[in-house]
Amino acid sequence: MSQPALDVSRPVRRDVQRNRDALLQAARQAYAGGGVDAPLDGIARLAGVGIATLYRHFPRRADLIDAVLACAVQDHLDIAARALVFADPWDGLVHYLEETTRLEAANRGINDLMCMRIPGTDTCEEAKENLCAALTRLIERAQASGQLRKDVTLQDFSFISWGNSRILDALSADDGEVWRRYLALLLDGFRAEGAHVLPCPPLEAEQVSRAMTRLGERPTFV
Amino acid sequence: MSQPALDVSRPVRRDVQRNRDALLQAARQAYAGGGVDAPLDGIARLAGVGIATLYRHFPRRADLIDAVLACAVQDHLDIAARALVFADPWDGLVHYLEETTRLEAANRGINDLMCMRIPGTDTCEEAKENLCAALTRLIERAQASGQLRKDVTLQDFSFISWGNSRILDALSADDGEVWRRYLALLLDGFRAEGAHVLPCPPLEAEQVSRAMTRLGERPTFV
Repeated sequence: MSQPALDVSRPVRRDVQRNRDALLQAARQAYAGGGVDAPLDGIARLAGVGIATLYRHFPRRADLIDAVLACAVQDHLDIAARALVFADPWDGLVHYLEETTRLEAANRGINDLMCMRIPGTDTCEEAKENLCAALTRLIERAQASGQLRKDVTLQDFSFISWGNSRILDALSADDGEVWRRYLALLLDGFRAEGAHVLPCPPLEAEQVSRAMTRLGERPTFV
Repeated sequence: MSQPALDVSRPVRRDVQRNRDALLQAARQAYAGGGVDAPLDGIARLAGVGIATLYRHFPRRADLIDAVLACAVQDHLDIAARALVFADPWDGLVHYLEETTRLEAANRGINDLMCMRIPGTDTCEEAKENLCAALTRLIERAQASGQLRKDVTLQDFSFISWGNSRILDALSADDGEVWRRYLALLLDGFRAEGAHVLPCPPLEAEQVSRAMTRLGERPTFV
């Protein structure tokens, strides 16, 4: 009986896959608690591998962030899809904002990712473009029904994202869901019924993009 | 003719004072652009002194922050004093929020200081207590006149402070005063006329204090 040819590559591949999985799992945990600026050496240690192995799998810090957090953007897209079939357009918009903020409140990495543009996280950024398209539809529906004020644009929702992100950083799990109170106060300002003239034109899409990049490149992020 | 006794301490004292002034000036500049986490060695370099000299004058990082930024809290107090004599209580409250945000927009150190509690900045924290008292009076006036919704408390204004702080971090001087648009949207939500029931009770003062400390102790702050 002849032996099958020895596949020397297999155990190596299995090892490689195991290290990769461990790194993803460690990064997921580190980002959730410490945000996307969790130190890479800590992630490698948590995964039980050396820093060189981390860099072999994920040459740039952004590659690791992209691999771990792309699914968070998908979760946001799923919420948007559900919100778009709400019979009441205002309730749909509120559902989207509450449920996405809930995800961000539970995970500092997701909170970071959603309020900033991290250069090199291409999968996440592509999914975020789809998310902007879905949010635009939610906004248009609520404006067409006369519930959302007509003078706000997609870009004004960046203010909510930025504001929320710092509030969630400030609060702890002990504070419960008090961020819902802030969101409700802010949303009362977005209702058509009590709208007063706004003092400045909205941001352009390009300004929002630069602002998101600015937050992603802050020196404290290194 | 007898010579006056040589005062050997004078040139030393003058030198000490000159170094102290240079350090304060350098820190003022560094905080304005980079926030209170501007590196101490960079401040010493900018002042033209060694890091040991910096530590001799300001043993703890908080001592330097306290010395440089206490006047910013005083500026806020001056704005509050002017706001309190507005004939229209709502206009007074809006004046306070717009003018203080303008100061914070122009200086990242002031922005940091006003949204977080930095342990050891005792002069600043004492002045901030007076500021809370003044803001409470502004709030009570606007509630008594029926303009500000009755269900908000002093603690709800921390949400504005936190939200603003991240928005100002995101924006650059090129974006002009677009933060006024966000503030106006938010303030429409604080008006009594369009108020809807809020989903959660307000934060307790103690929770706000802990949240402020949390922002001041963030690992990225070191």
